[in-house]
Amino acid sequence: MSYFDAASAAPLHPVARQALAASLDEGWADPARLYREGRKARMLLDAARETAADLVGCRPDELVFTSSGTRAVHTGVAGALAGRRRVGRHLIVSAVEHSSVLHAAEVHEADGGSVTQVAVDRTGAVPAGAYGAALRPDTALACLQSANHEVGTVQPVAEAAEACRAAGVPLLVDAAQSLGWGPVEGGWSLLAASAHKWGGPPGVGLLAVRKGVRFAAPGPADEREAGRAPGFENIPAIVAAVASLRAVRAEADAEAARLRELTELIRARVPHLVPDVEVVGDPVRRLPGIVTFSCLYVDGEALLHELDRAGFSVSSGSSCTSSTLTPSHVLKAMGVLSEGNVRVSLPPGTAARDVERFLEVLPEAVAAVRAKLGAPAPAAGAAVGGPALVVDALGRRCPIPVIELAKAIGDVPVGGTVRVLADDEAARLDIPAWCEMRGQKYVGEEPADRGAAYVVRRTS
Amino acid sequence: MSYFDAASAAPLHPVARQALAASLDEGWADPARLYREGRKARMLLDAARETAADLVGCRPDELVFTSSGTRAVHTGVAGALAGRRRVGRHLIVSAVEHSSVLHAAEVHEADGGSVTQVAVDRTGAVPAGAYGAALRPDTALACLQSANHEVGTVQPVAEAAEACRAAGVPLLVDAAQSLGWGPVEGGWSLLAASAHKWGGPPGVGLLAVRKGVRFAAPGPADEREAGRAPGFENIPAIVAAVASLRAVRAEADAEAARLRELTELIRARVPHLVPDVEVVGDPVRRLPGIVTFSCLYVDGEALLHELDRAGFSVSSGSSCTSSTLTPSHVLKAMGVLSEGNVRVSLPPGTAARDVERFLEVLPEAVAAVRAKLGAPAPAAGAAVGGPALVVDALGRRCPIPVIELAKAIGDVPVGGTVRVLADDEAARLDIPAWCEMRGQKYVGEEPADRGAAYVVRRTS
Repeated sequence: MSYFDAASAAPLHPVARQALAASLDEGWADPARLYREGRKARMLLDAARETAADLVGCRPDELVFTSSGTRAVHTGVAGALAGRRRVGRHLIVSAVEHSSVLHAAEVHEADGGSVTQVAVDRTGAVPAGAYGAALRPDTALACLQSANHEVGTVQPVAEAAEACRAAGVPLLVDAAQSLGWGPVEGGWSLLAASAHKWGGPPGVGLLAVRKGVRFAAPGPADEREAGRAPGFENIPAIVAAVASLRAVRAEADAEAARLRELTELIRARVPHLVPDVEVVGDPVRRLPGIVTFSCLYVDGEALLHELDRAGFSVSSGSSCTSSTLTPSHVLKAMGVLSEGNVRVSLPPGTAARDVERFLEVLPEAVAAVRAKLGAPAPAAGAAVGGPALVVDALGRRCPIPVIELAKAIGDVPVGGTVRVLADDEAARLDIPAWCEMRGQKYVGEEPADRGAAYVVRRTS
Repeated sequence: MSYFDAASAAPLHPVARQALAASLDEGWADPARLYREGRKARMLLDAARETAADLVGCRPDELVFTSSGTRAVHTGVAGALAGRRRVGRHLIVSAVEHSSVLHAAEVHEADGGSVTQVAVDRTGAVPAGAYGAALRPDTALACLQSANHEVGTVQPVAEAAEACRAAGVPLLVDAAQSLGWGPVEGGWSLLAASAHKWGGPPGVGLLAVRKGVRFAAPGPADEREAGRAPGFENIPAIVAAVASLRAVRAEADAEAARLRELTELIRARVPHLVPDVEVVGDPVRRLPGIVTFSCLYVDGEALLHELDRAGFSVSSGSSCTSSTLTPSHVLKAMGVLSEGNVRVSLPPGTAARDVERFLEVLPEAVAAVRAKLGAPAPAAGAAVGGPALVVDALGRRCPIPVIELAKAIGDVPVGGTVRVLADDEAARLDIPAWCEMRGQKYVGEEPADRGAAYVVRRTS
């Protein structure tokens, strides 16, 4: 079994396992107590905080340990907004932030605050100058991820931080995907991260808040972790998290170069091995271990099952695989194809032969799913003649509407149009994306009794 | 070293350690994922939830795992209050709840809600009928601990639950101190607990919310744990927590009987071994492993240090030991002496010889602290004559004001009074408590330029 979903959760690093076992003996007591066991626990916690601060690039008294990266984000966003409430209630986020940031923004909006979502380009990157342009006199906080969790695109954090600093606005960086690779550059004000993303145990997040940032922790008072992370400290897990961060950092440069070659191989080979594929995300400014692509005429969940049977664990941002039945907000914001989406995220130590084997089984897996769905042959020739066409895909789930469109396009004369009736939310994203991939003209969307009618003109 | 502070944190149970090691291999992946590693993680989580629900006495879909007992309390209180906001904003708590409950109540009050603190008797117990009497038409929630964390007194939860049920008000039970000993009796609506109190690892709390209880989880949305505990699930720790709960429950009856004998020994012997001691808490309706006493003329922190040097780790609710310099709210609410307070909480497995050794070293430790502070001899005779006396203890910390009072009382004629000037907050509690212990008459408190004047009449 090859586990290629490190961006969800990395397997426990051996150093984390050793540190956890050792500190279960020394770090279980209450570090606030004055007796021997308490003093030992306090020493472990203090030492972990110093090391973590050094690796993050902040002072030890600026860093607290939370119970998860999600908690670090929730507390960071709420605390910074509350601390700057007198300045205003405007929050800036990118459209491709992790759901923990977007959910925190929703709560702020429901509570009467205002939120600007900064759009991204087709690679998933925030364009230069976009954060500077979004700043307002009443902006209390801006949030930007260091790198995207679904497509791996690295964001211009240093540039955004500079624009924010010039305006006196703190920038919170969600560094969950990148902290294992290195510290976040630039003048950020708050930083959140999650240990299980770099091979630490679950149950540990980091929240750094630079001195001078106004901050009012949300929720009931608690004396632990500077009042920013209520509840008994999980010292064994904290020690393991920090030990593994130090270990992965020591290996980071060499491992990044190696994984970058492997993901480059996937980026380069997949479009040749699988017809009708779009590789998404920035080809250069990206995390070493993540590569994401989408396959036309494929149900993402079915493809995940095929790959699982072939021994590969990957994830998908397709509508078809999630419980919510809406496509990934990241792929949507990028305007790229969401159907048949696969994210490969390689954990450190991934063997080259496993990647090669993945490239061997992928074409068959995709073909098997397409065959079951009755997808069109990849090189469908252009037929001539026939009247304006309507494809009725109402009640059909992704990727069926696109499959039916692809089947029908051959019957449309060049210059003629086809109307696809569909009520699956993913069609709104995937039909324009299909047009772009196939060189056809997406005319637009028209209202319909049920769902919508998507109009496509055949151009070739 | 004998660790007698299980009520703060219990050492890790061997079963927890084994379960943690095993589930680190199987339970690190994201349980929401469909591939093999995710399915394994999901199975472990589901099995842990079923076992935990069985041990708590609820349905699996009523129980979520939080990152700590504190989080379980915070979420439970906020969620129940929000869910019943239309009914009203009145919250009932006992005066001796854990700080996590009282801090949650403070937030509610700061947000415009109202809070009734139900007083306790001198044993720390909520009197019969007190919760019923506190209920109002606008009561949204009542909270009552199953047993007190500082003095071990068991609360009348079933009776309070019945009163609440009759009024249609949910009762939240903080079962942190008792869940390892058995399920909470009676018709509670919500229940919170913390794994590290029963020998599970840190980082795991439980929150049960019975079906039918209106509940609106606070904070940003999150799809994990029924939306009640955001962040990646800490499955290895959850599995270890549940495995150890099952293990301690299997041993609970026998171990409770054994520990009860040991704490009974301490309760009975300490007043004979140490002069001027008050053993507090209910002598019968109490947890098996906790016994608490206070020593006149003793600085709690100094006593903890003496005991630590002698090889015993205990805690104290004395003003003198905490960073806040106010006496324990529990001892204050009980109206008992807070100075020189010691809580002994025995972990399961405590050897009888360790308790005997504790009883050997305790008298010397107390005597050493008293000698350093210049405390009066225990059997100070009653002198006769002399004018009305003023003891100036301004600027002196607990236990000095009481020590000075005790020294001066011998110079007061029977029927005469002494005024103690003091500005340490603990004096307000400890001077009346001293009077009760010594059979003297506490007349009352008078305003003074600095601090207050506490007036005591010598009666014998």
